[in-house]
Amino acid sequence: MVDTVKLAVIPGDGIGPEVVTEALKALTAATEGAEVVFEQTAFSLGAARYLETGDVLTDDDLESIKGHDAILLGAVGGVPGDPRLAGANIERGLLLRLRFELDHYVNLRPSVLYPGVASPLAAPGDVDFVVVREGTEGPYVGNGGAIRVGTPAEVANEVSVNTAYGVERVVRYAFAAASARPRKKLTLVHKTNVLVFAGSLWKRTVDAVAAEFPEVAVDYLHVDAATIFLVTDPARFDVIVTDNLFGDILTDLAGAISGGIGLAASGNINPDGRFPSMFEPVHGSAPDIAGKGIADPTAAILSVALLLDHLGRADAARRVQRAVVADIADRGTARRTTSEVGDAIAARISALD
Amino acid sequence: MVDTVKLAVIPGDGIGPEVVTEALKALTAATEGAEVVFEQTAFSLGAARYLETGDVLTDDDLESIKGHDAILLGAVGGVPGDPRLAGANIERGLLLRLRFELDHYVNLRPSVLYPGVASPLAAPGDVDFVVVREGTEGPYVGNGGAIRVGTPAEVANEVSVNTAYGVERVVRYAFAAASARPRKKLTLVHKTNVLVFAGSLWKRTVDAVAAEFPEVAVDYLHVDAATIFLVTDPARFDVIVTDNLFGDILTDLAGAISGGIGLAASGNINPDGRFPSMFEPVHGSAPDIAGKGIADPTAAILSVALLLDHLGRADAARRVQRAVVADIADRGTARRTTSEVGDAIAARISALD
Ligand SMILES: CC(C)[C@H](C(=O)O)[C@@H](O)C(=O)O
Ligand SMILES: CC(C)[C@H](C(=O)O)[C@@H](O)C(=O)O
Repeated sequence: MVDTVKLAVIPGDGIGPEVVTEALKALTAATEGAEVVFEQTAFSLGAARYLETGDVLTDDDLESIKGHDAILLGAVGGVPGDPRLAGANIERGLLLRLRFELDHYVNLRPSVLYPGVASPLAAPGDVDFVVVREGTEGPYVGNGGAIRVGTPAEVANEVSVNTAYGVERVVRYAFAAASARPRKKLTLVHKTNVLVFAGSLWKRTVDAVAAEFPEVAVDYLHVDAATIFLVTDPARFDVIVTDNLFGDILTDLAGAISGGIGLAASGNINPDGRFPSMFEPVHGSAPDIAGKGIADPTAAILSVALLLDHLGRADAARRVQRAVVADIADRGTARRTTSEVGDAIAARISALD
Repeated sequence: MVDTVKLAVIPGDGIGPEVVTEALKALTAATEGAEVVFEQTAFSLGAARYLETGDVLTDDDLESIKGHDAILLGAVGGVPGDPRLAGANIERGLLLRLRFELDHYVNLRPSVLYPGVASPLAAPGDVDFVVVREGTEGPYVGNGGAIRVGTPAEVANEVSVNTAYGVERVVRYAFAAASARPRKKLTLVHKTNVLVFAGSLWKRTVDAVAAEFPEVAVDYLHVDAATIFLVTDPARFDVIVTDNLFGDILTDLAGAISGGIGLAASGNINPDGRFPSMFEPVHGSAPDIAGKGIADPTAAILSVALLLDHLGRADAARRVQRAVVADIADRGTARRTTSEVGDAIAARISALD
């Protein structure tokens, strides 16, 4: 019996379409001969669509996306400072709206320093951790407001909303992830000494769930201290669980120390399976290098590995990852185009059977 | 005429008293022969005081501190996890209360990679920037709350409060600081694409104040991207202006890349002069190494340089800094005790006249 997976593809803006093309080559190579067919629907979403139609994400788009099993996204966002985009917030209206509407409460961001990759750190050590970033709460909820805007008496507030419901489910996911890894270590990152209400909820929740996972060693770091360890001893980390904003900050830093966000993949996951999960490189649309064929598609390809894993295709996922690792290890100083990298990795995947 | 400066000294906990002792030696050496006398009052505040009396910071303490011209603080905070401290939040009740009550709206944190200092970065370049962190607003205001605590229906909120009044004054200070530096560059760091209300206020304020400082080049980075540049190209920064929480995170990272927070000094400044400003090393009380005489007093000594600068004693400040730089450049691998370092720097200061 052949499985059919309905895949929504959002190439997006800038280098998004270029890297997605390569990611799809990897997907095809990895699932060739497997009893699975990916039925792809492309969605034209992002700054380009907005400029053409004035729409960021319509309810129809959303309904149609919900009918899919998974989403592959390249990158969205126009040229910074483009006056025609001043009124739109593509990030909030599209990327964050998808994460919230599709209840992507786990934002999974692995950081691995692959052999052959240069780190800006002099002695990075053996970097191999994953950040489990909460995706549907915290300061990202859009629950702020402002009064007297534009006057000297303006007040602009942002509200971070944290619920036992939302914190517990992501913490439980993080413990399960830690338990499945060899080192079985979980670090909660927050700022409990200042954000006392949210911090207390996170801390109590970790303590409570820890009792169900006695095999997992738990520690805690303030977010400021965590950034120090990320540059002085990143090898100490195994699984980090943290809120939406801290996770945003830590994962960019984590990407940088493990060879740049050109290599960083991510999954926006709805573990319940009620909604399709979405896989995307951590990098943005990089309009400055778009259309030149020089974008690195590796992060998008590694996002395909996360997608395959999520769909229960662990073997295919591992082949994508092994092919990427092999390709990286052989990268010399010669510059390759985006499609040369994609073709090389796809060829390696096919050769791996 | 001899000036009298009333100095409140808060040695605090852990290594705080040890490093303050050395900082005071530097202060004495730097102002010897100058027409100034430092009249010191020691305040017993911190975890130790709390354990003894149950007080964190009484109104009387606060009034008495307000009667001083400046404050030198070592570090406060007990042993992490000490059950007797579970009810107290020394950070909020003491450190943050002082910053808020004394209207320390500028938290000044220079990052300089001194010659001879090892950075965890392979190629740090010429690191010399200063973070102007807002000190009285943002997510630090303590304006959160929680309902149904301890139940599965708990909601815990944190509110970031930002006002035109508060943002404009710190932004103006940052522009003035940038204007006085050779490179005249200012980078706003925020997360305007997600925290749209607060972000918009910060962005509009920087744009407005920029018109008064045409000589200052301005750019903007999202906080996540800023952490990337701090490890890939920290030399790009000159003055960073940012909110209370982002400033907390960035300055720990900045300290780490410029040789560790053992070297990071800070000033909590009330530029109006209505209240005494407070100078402190960025590091904490480090109870694990307290009492062993091995703490590095350099950050506390550099905080004295910031204090002298603030009091209009630029010459004395420069001598402290030059002595520290010279001491650092000569540091071999031999371990010195806290007081050996302090004595050596004090001797260098005296020799510099
Ligand atoms: C584009 C932006 C809204 C987004 C975020 O802040 O989550 C990005 O930085 C990320 O990390 O995926
Ligand atoms: C101790 C803590 C409250 C404080 C802060 O968050 O401001 C510290 O991290 C700092 O940076 O001075």
